[in-house]
Amino acid sequence: MPKLPIPFGDDVSAYDIGNGNLAVLKTDMLVAKTDVPRGMSLWQAARKAVVMNVSDFAAKGVKPKVVLVSLGLPKGLNENDIKQIGMGLNAGAREWDAYVIGGDTGEASDLVISISLFGTARKRLLMLRSGAKPGDIVAVTGFFGKSVAGLKILLGEFDASAEVRKVLVDSALMPHARLKEGLALSRTKAITAAIDSSDGLAWSLHEIARASNVGFVINKLPIAEEAKPFARDNKLDTIELTLYGGEEYELVLTVKPAFWKKAQNAVEKVGGKLLQIGKAVAETQLILEIDDKKKLIEPRGWEHFKSSNV
Amino acid sequence: MPKLPIPFGDDVSAYDIGNGNLAVLKTDMLVAKTDVPRGMSLWQAARKAVVMNVSDFAAKGVKPKVVLVSLGLPKGLNENDIKQIGMGLNAGAREWDAYVIGGDTGEASDLVISISLFGTARKRLLMLRSGAKPGDIVAVTGFFGKSVAGLKILLGEFDASAEVRKVLVDSALMPHARLKEGLALSRTKAITAAIDSSDGLAWSLHEIARASNVGFVINKLPIAEEAKPFARDNKLDTIELTLYGGEEYELVLTVKPAFWKKAQNAVEKVGGKLLQIGKAVAETQLILEIDDKKKLIEPRGWEHFKSSNV
Repeated sequence: MPKLPIPFGDDVSAYDIGNGNLAVLKTDMLVAKTDVPRGMSLWQAARKAVVMNVSDFAAKGVKPKVVLVSLGLPKGLNENDIKQIGMGLNAGAREWDAYVIGGDTGEASDLVISISLFGTARKRLLMLRSGAKPGDIVAVTGFFGKSVAGLKILLGEFDASAEVRKVLVDSALMPHARLKEGLALSRTKAITAAIDSSDGLAWSLHEIARASNVGFVINKLPIAEEAKPFARDNKLDTIELTLYGGEEYELVLTVKPAFWKKAQNAVEKVGGKLLQIGKAVAETQLILEIDDKKKLIEPRGWEHFKSSNV
Repeated sequence: MPKLPIPFGDDVSAYDIGNGNLAVLKTDMLVAKTDVPRGMSLWQAARKAVVMNVSDFAAKGVKPKVVLVSLGLPKGLNENDIKQIGMGLNAGAREWDAYVIGGDTGEASDLVISISLFGTARKRLLMLRSGAKPGDIVAVTGFFGKSVAGLKILLGEFDASAEVRKVLVDSALMPHARLKEGLALSRTKAITAAIDSSDGLAWSLHEIARASNVGFVINKLPIAEEAKPFARDNKLDTIELTLYGGEEYELVLTVKPAFWKKAQNAVEKVGGKLLQIGKAVAETQLILEIDDKKKLIEPRGWEHFKSSNV
């Protein structure tokens, strides 16, 4: 095996094409049974398949240039269904100026949408998971808890008032990748480690901690406002929702303290935000420290559900 | 949509990365239900998933450099099954000096193995489907009928004597991509159009004819020796097996007549063979002319079956 610019096991792969340039590649499969909740249209499912891949490129600071698609189609789908899938794929790609340039279809029992992304990057600008140092600021690009609450509503387990319900469900149906933020941050050279949060905030923090051999003290939880009434009304724990939810597409980053302002400005310039949630420390433990109470952050993540509209 | 170096709808996609170089990309999905016959091991299925993708690269004259895999795993598989899949994927990649550098696994109802290939190529060496000219020689890299006969045996529809059976079944279980041949031919500049034959010889000829706006007169059918007793014993037509079988991974090519010797030498130098089967003509019809009898070659191809060992 040649020395890889990104270690095996990461969400994204890269291959050295010379002159300091990398071919950056990613493939991930959306399976309706575990990734598409009831209430999500085929158009939304296809778009989401692209978003979940783009989100991993965002965490590396790489722009996807082209998208390839391999579709496994169950028998029951009609022509309009397939058109909706095609349009959703295209919408997902065009949001980022990328194009669907090829692919393949076949028959399968589940609806399976396998996406491949390709882009190129300067090797020295690539954000990895392994560079966090004690003293670095831990930051995220947005608030957590909305998508997971929306999914819980779509799965029929929980509910919320009409207004809050809409915000939460929309967040689950129309996820957004933080590509603008990732690209802007990779150019600042302020970032020592980055990952997306599709498996949940706690899981993402554990991945960076392990790859970088550091620990974290998290003293500010980025709880979305709308997740609070949802948690209260359904007797759920907001900390649980924020840390161990998933299907969120925020970036989780560590930032050199001297470059914090630069990083924050870069993100704000592209319309985003960068929220400090804690600090990296030498001791390889993940601690949540809120109201002077300390608690271990567990290496638990989002588990896919079983439910589908197809 | 930017102007693509390979038209949308081809089996392979490309993206211009400057200086006359292309990023060449391909994704295709093996679904156990339609691509894995009973009697094919998981190791063989995984290897075949790579071979089917490499074969399309071979037809373009492009060497795959890295392989990404996205796996959908049904619940019944155990640890050893998954190890066999991993080893088969690796075997398929290492046959061509390529490496599996990343991927993703999830749960699915079928076993789904989605492969993505990446390689680079000089734009001017790429073999397309669209360059055949009247007068060009039509050629293939090997004989047809063995794989489809082997599949028919595996599906339990037909049988053969022990010796022939083994050759035919092996051919279906362990397909080989003609990458060496494709790479050697692309360097000769003798090839005006190329495609692989995974959907059958007739289908491949029709694809080149349509893309190049030519017709073909085929006067020599490349029937594999072992397919003859199989056809005779099972009362099957050898022409049918050769033209409309599938899951074969030979290359189908058109060659500039003045460069024929050069092309043949190049293929023989890498241990392969190049067999003339006919000529390209201006009239856009596909004619089989054997023993002074003329017959239309129909645009029919290989249909996937429904049967699986997983």
